[in-house]
Amino acid sequence: MCTPARFVAGSAACGLKPSGALDVGVLAATVPCVSAMVTTTSALPAAPILRNRAHADTPRVRAVVVNAGTANAATGSPGEADAEAMARRAADALGVDPAEVVVSSTGTIGDRLDRDRVLPGVDAAVAARGPAGGPGFARAIQTTDRFDKSGAFSVTLASGTTLTIGIAAKGAGMISPGMATMLAYVTLDAALAPDDLAAATRAATAASFNRISVDGQMSPSDTLLVMSAGDGPPLAGDDLAVLADALRAVCRWAALLIVTDGEGAERVVRLLVDGAADAAEAERVARAVADSPLVKTAVHGRDANWGRVSQAVGQALAGSAGPQARLRVAADGVPIGDAAVARVMERRAYDLVVSLGRGGAGAERFFCDLGHAYVTLNADYTT
Amino acid sequence: MCTPARFVAGSAACGLKPSGALDVGVLAATVPCVSAMVTTTSALPAAPILRNRAHADTPRVRAVVVNAGTANAATGSPGEADAEAMARRAADALGVDPAEVVVSSTGTIGDRLDRDRVLPGVDAAVAARGPAGGPGFARAIQTTDRFDKSGAFSVTLASGTTLTIGIAAKGAGMISPGMATMLAYVTLDAALAPDDLAAATRAATAASFNRISVDGQMSPSDTLLVMSAGDGPPLAGDDLAVLADALRAVCRWAALLIVTDGEGAERVVRLLVDGAADAAEAERVARAVADSPLVKTAVHGRDANWGRVSQAVGQALAGSAGPQARLRVAADGVPIGDAAVARVMERRAYDLVVSLGRGGAGAERFFCDLGHAYVTLNADYTT
Repeated sequence: MCTPARFVAGSAACGLKPSGALDVGVLAATVPCVSAMVTTTSALPAAPILRNRAHADTPRVRAVVVNAGTANAATGSPGEADAEAMARRAADALGVDPAEVVVSSTGTIGDRLDRDRVLPGVDAAVAARGPAGGPGFARAIQTTDRFDKSGAFSVTLASGTTLTIGIAAKGAGMISPGMATMLAYVTLDAALAPDDLAAATRAATAASFNRISVDGQMSPSDTLLVMSAGDGPPLAGDDLAVLADALRAVCRWAALLIVTDGEGAERVVRLLVDGAADAAEAERVARAVADSPLVKTAVHGRDANWGRVSQAVGQALAGSAGPQARLRVAADGVPIGDAAVARVMERRAYDLVVSLGRGGAGAERFFCDLGHAYVTLNADYTT
Repeated sequence: MCTPARFVAGSAACGLKPSGALDVGVLAATVPCVSAMVTTTSALPAAPILRNRAHADTPRVRAVVVNAGTANAATGSPGEADAEAMARRAADALGVDPAEVVVSSTGTIGDRLDRDRVLPGVDAAVAARGPAGGPGFARAIQTTDRFDKSGAFSVTLASGTTLTIGIAAKGAGMISPGMATMLAYVTLDAALAPDDLAAATRAATAASFNRISVDGQMSPSDTLLVMSAGDGPPLAGDDLAVLADALRAVCRWAALLIVTDGEGAERVVRLLVDGAADAAEAERVARAVADSPLVKTAVHGRDANWGRVSQAVGQALAGSAGPQARLRVAADGVPIGDAAVARVMERRAYDLVVSLGRGGAGAERFFCDLGHAYVTLNADYTT
C-alpha cells in the first residue's frame, strides 16, 4: 500500500479479534489527495458507510481507518456516532480534517463497536505508521481470509512516466458486491482530475469487484476507496487511458484473489455467458449460474453434472419472451458431455462458457465452489 | 393415494435407480376424472412437461405415469418422444386415451431416458396396480427423500357429505417452485366443475408449494396434478369452499413435509415478513432471507446471528424507494438479542418474524437449514 510515494500505514491489535491478531489499520497520505469511492448498494448499509456518505468529502479523502472483528452494521445511530468517533480520533492523531478520513468496519453484523478498545487502537495504529506499514495494514483488515490480497504494480504511461499502484483488499464471505467489494483500498501516485479518477474507478469496479461472487450475499460494508497523491498537472489523453486500464487490471487481480479465497473455496470458475437476448438477461443468467448451490457443489465435487447449469438457466429465463434457449456449455473449450471434461474439472481454475443461442449479448462472472468448509465456517462460528 | 374411491396405483423396479429400488409408478382412476395441473415456470422445462402441455388434455386427465432416476430434462425433442412413448405405453396398458395420461420424470438432468428399462417397467407397474398400491407408488417417485410424503384426509362438507383427499409428493433438493413443486399428486372423490377445480388448485398452490424453499433452485420438472373422480352434480357454494380449503390444507401439509425433508435439513423455519411497502417487496425480502446461505447456515449452527437477516434484507431492498427499513426480528415471539433466542433455535421448527416498518404488506415462506449433508449429497453424487 505504501509503494506509491507519500503513503504511510500502521496497524495495532486492540482486542476486537479474539485471537489477538492485528485488528486496527490506518492508511494515510502525507500530502493532500484526489480520491474516489464506491460503496454498497445495500438498503441497510453499515454505520461507517452512512457516516462516510454524510461526512467524508470525496474527492479529497487522504486517510482511511479500519477495524476488523465488528462490522458496526445494523447498529443504528449509536453505531454512526461510533464510526464518527473513530474518524475523529484518526483525524486528530494524523492532524487532518475528519472530512478527509474514511472509516470501515468488518466482522460480525449487529454488535456495537467497543470504543474502549478501538479508539486506543486507532492511536496505536497512527503512532506505528510508516512507509513499511503496508503488510500490517493488509493483515489488520482481514477476517476469515486465508491469504493476503495486497500488492503493488507499476504502470508506464504513454508519455514514458512510470507510476505506481498499491492495493489491499479483503474477502472472504458475504461476497456479491452490488457496487464494490467488502473492502479494497488503492493508492496511486498520479496527478488526476477528480472526475477522471471517479470515472476510472467506476469502470474498474464494473470490470472487477462487481463480477465476483462467493455466496451471492451482498455485504452492508462494501467499500472501494482509491486515493492518488500525485503532483504536477492532471493526467489526460493517452496517459489517462493507460492509467485507467492499469487501475482496472489491478482491481481485477484483487477481485480474483477474493474469489480464490472465498470461504471454503478450492476452485475458481470464470463464467462467460454469451448468446443472450440483451445485457440484462446475460447478467441475470450469469448471476443465477454463479450463485446456484447446485452448480457450486458440482464444481466442488468435480461432477460434470451440466444439467444443473441447465436448471439455473431455465430458472433465470423463467417468463422471458423470445426463442427458447438452445443451450451449449463448454469447460476450457471442451463441450460438456465429452469425457475429457472430468479432467478440466480437476483444475484449480477453468473457464465455463454458457451459450444461450438467443441473441448477441454476453456477461462475465467469477465464482468459487461450495464445500464443507463454507458450512463449517458459517454454521459453527459467529462471523 | 387410493383412499379416495375409484383410484388404483402400482409400482415396479426397472433398474433406473442403481439401488434397485422401486422407480416406476402408475396412478389411475377407474372412471373418468376432472383434473387440474400446475407446472414449472422454468424457461427450460423438462421433456415430460413439454409433452404434457402439448398432449395431455387437462381437465380430463385420469392417470399419471412417473419414473425416478432420470429427469428426462435438457434432452431436446428425443426426450419429448421418450415421454410420449411412456404415456402411450401406460395408456395402452390401462386402456385409456394417451391424452388422459400425464408423464413425470425425476432424477438426473441431462441424461436420456432408457426406454428399454422404463417401458417394461410401465407394463409391470400397470399390471401390479390395485387399491393397495399407494405406498409403493409414493416410494417409486422418491429420489433423495428420507421419508414418505403421502397421506389421506377426510373432509366433511357443509351439506354433511364426507369426501376423501389423497396426496403423494416428493422433494428433496432443487426446491424453489415457481408454480408447483417437484412432484405432487392429489386424488379426490368429489364431483367438481373443471373451472372450480382449476381455481382451487391455483389457490392451494399459492398457499403451499409456492411458499417453500430448500435451496432456492427451481426444478424443470415441477408438477402438481389434482384428479377428482366423483359423481353426482358438481360441488357449489359452501361445499365447494370447504373442499377448496381442505385442498389448500392438504397441499400445505405436503409442502411442509418437503421442506422438513430438504436435503440435509435438520430444522424448518416458518418465515413471516411484515411491514413491507407492498406485496412484491414482501415476497422479495422473504425469498432473500429464506434462500440466504448465511441465514441457512446460521439456522443449522443454532447461531443467533441476526446480522445475517439484516444483510439479506438490505440486499433485497437495494435500490428501493421509501423510508429505510426499521428492522425488528423475533423467533417464536422472542426478540432477537434476547438470550432466550438460543433456546428457540434448538427447536426442530420455529417461526421467524421479520418486521420491516415500511408499510402494511406481508409474506410467508418455509425454509430449512443448510448443513454438511446438503454439500455431501450434492458434491459427492450425481443427482
